[in-house]
Amino acid sequence: MSTPKKKDFKKLALQAHKKLGGKIALAPKVHLKTLDDWSTYYTPGVAAVSTYVAAHPESAQVMTMKKNSVAVISDGSAVLGLGNIGPLGALPVMEGKAVIFKEVADIDAYPIVLDTQDPDEIIETVVRIAPGFGGINLEDIKAPECFYIEEEVKRRLNIPVMHDDQHGTAIVVLAGLMNALKVVKKNKKEVAVTVLGAGAAGCAIAMLLSREGFADIRVVDSRGVVHKKRDDLHKYKKRLAALPTKRKDARTLADAVAGADVVVAVSGPGTVSEAMVKSMNTDAIIFALANPIPEIMPDSAKKAGAAVVATGRSDFPNQVNNALVFPGIFRGALDAGVSKITDDMKVRAAEALARLVEKPTPENIIPSVLDKRAVAAVAKAVAKK
Amino acid sequence: MSTPKKKDFKKLALQAHKKLGGKIALAPKVHLKTLDDWSTYYTPGVAAVSTYVAAHPESAQVMTMKKNSVAVISDGSAVLGLGNIGPLGALPVMEGKAVIFKEVADIDAYPIVLDTQDPDEIIETVVRIAPGFGGINLEDIKAPECFYIEEEVKRRLNIPVMHDDQHGTAIVVLAGLMNALKVVKKNKKEVAVTVLGAGAAGCAIAMLLSREGFADIRVVDSRGVVHKKRDDLHKYKKRLAALPTKRKDARTLADAVAGADVVVAVSGPGTVSEAMVKSMNTDAIIFALANPIPEIMPDSAKKAGAAVVATGRSDFPNQVNNALVFPGIFRGALDAGVSKITDDMKVRAAEALARLVEKPTPENIIPSVLDKRAVAAVAKAVAKK
Repeated sequence: MSTPKKKDFKKLALQAHKKLGGKIALAPKVHLKTLDDWSTYYTPGVAAVSTYVAAHPESAQVMTMKKNSVAVISDGSAVLGLGNIGPLGALPVMEGKAVIFKEVADIDAYPIVLDTQDPDEIIETVVRIAPGFGGINLEDIKAPECFYIEEEVKRRLNIPVMHDDQHGTAIVVLAGLMNALKVVKKNKKEVAVTVLGAGAAGCAIAMLLSREGFADIRVVDSRGVVHKKRDDLHKYKKRLAALPTKRKDARTLADAVAGADVVVAVSGPGTVSEAMVKSMNTDAIIFALANPIPEIMPDSAKKAGAAVVATGRSDFPNQVNNALVFPGIFRGALDAGVSKITDDMKVRAAEALARLVEKPTPENIIPSVLDKRAVAAVAKAVAKK
Repeated sequence: MSTPKKKDFKKLALQAHKKLGGKIALAPKVHLKTLDDWSTYYTPGVAAVSTYVAAHPESAQVMTMKKNSVAVISDGSAVLGLGNIGPLGALPVMEGKAVIFKEVADIDAYPIVLDTQDPDEIIETVVRIAPGFGGINLEDIKAPECFYIEEEVKRRLNIPVMHDDQHGTAIVVLAGLMNALKVVKKNKKEVAVTVLGAGAAGCAIAMLLSREGFADIRVVDSRGVVHKKRDDLHKYKKRLAALPTKRKDARTLADAVAGADVVVAVSGPGTVSEAMVKSMNTDAIIFALANPIPEIMPDSAKKAGAAVVATGRSDFPNQVNNALVFPGIFRGALDAGVSKITDDMKVRAAEALARLVEKPTPENIIPSVLDKRAVAAVAKAVAKK
């Protein structure tokens, strides 16, 4: 497994973070230079604003931080590929997301890391702190708890709520896949798709592909293919087992990969071999999304015959990164007053992202995270009635 | 009751807030211009930082937002003088506090308003969201619940926690009173002090004055003097009834004010009459702190014989405003790694504030909120070992 020559970002990041003392700061939009400033933005003037907002709750969307704010909330139970490292470990990632939200979409995102990993306590806490926020981005919460938590929080709040590890990833995968299929001239209704990994991302990817008309989907977890005859499946994996497939008898990872047109791997470093790629259909598409070390390195996948390879890394072509998605999803939802992120919005967002690549090629199926058009395209897709 | 000619801050504030759409925004300390920026501040680099912080929790104080952040938390149950207007009504005030924190003390304060007014739920919620913050400023929570909530949150967290309505107010009152006593040449051990109002501020003021050696303190609530023989007192009012006093037989508001040297009123607009001031000792000191309309207007109090009058307003001399206190308290605590705000710190902070007025006069007993020396003086007092 070869690694391209690159900077030591581990070292650079540690140095930078020590020096910075946190990546975010608060920036008042007003200043308190005179007593009149104090009287306008604080007492006594603010009393009139508070009275007005209390009497007209909808005006909070105009006159307060709620207009442009998203809480980025994690319990630290599944941080990047690092596992359950707790809330303090999660904090640098949540701050990073806040930086992305601001830089990409001009959204004020507030990191909140939780000293609990109990799903009901997380739900209660998120609901209780929600009033001041215009949206809730759940982040790095482990499966299957994340499914229940997101469902319940969505049900109980009337602001947009999204677990980004699920839906941000699923949307950008769908976008990339739309273009990858154009490259190999295959049709979504005919391709056999195998998703490796049945965690937050794997579940959401499989569900969204099905929603979009993919007709042969098999998901593989650590015990093999997720199929209807297994008796160890939780409620969310049962949904995966019920997805349409033409490969009802597949039981092992090898069964599910052999003959597949597409493998989307969200399963961890090095879990896809060259032999597995060779067992796939011609013009195979491989998304190897584990970060920073993919399931298979692009050169190995190519050598084994893959036609299109995507990873989560910025130093290879085709970076499938949910930062292409979440800023635009919330930008669109906040601007349009959307109270729920629906599957229709997710599909439209993927289509909009895919369209930004005019002529997809094996090395270019998805825009760069530096592509400033992405946020507007996704936001527009979400806001569309 | 005359009101000085002044600007219509109610109107100005409503206009300004509608235009602003919230008073705060997030400001990343880094930018994401290149893919290297992404790799340093987000994945893959941030994984090294998360791993390090998870393994060395104390490093969160160096490498994350925790270093300089305070959560400003309210349930909206006692907002300014407006009463229980709920979390959305509280939000503009919390944003105002965040602006003050940043402008005065360069602290990043994050407003969080709660969709619960149950004390135990508030405690749980604050404890659960605490890991990312370096301090907790509780705000505009009604009495007596605020006492229990603050006690419990302090007990359960090892970061500085302060209910500003209690202690910010008590500290600035003590500071003003130190200088007012110099003006009238009276001694704290000899003066009769009457506190009108036994809510958050009244309780904390009485307790801190006692702690500082004031030896004759009576507190008055809506049913008269808070004394030991009443059977309607909650636990916190029982503490007030036990404070030292030479006026054991005082029962009514009139009893408690007659002959007093100092009246500190935190009881609501117009509750102190000229006749009451006339009943006080010579060289009476009146702090009439209800906002925006004081218990008695300064000109009326002066006419009735008061020697020193303070209010909460910026358009009269002697503005007793806790904004002189809370930014410095948290600045000092964050910088010195203080885990509890103690009574000693509060007294030192008051002394430091009082000392900023070199020659106290009837019209100048406390620094202006625009006095940039206040934050450093208070911070130094808190950080002192």
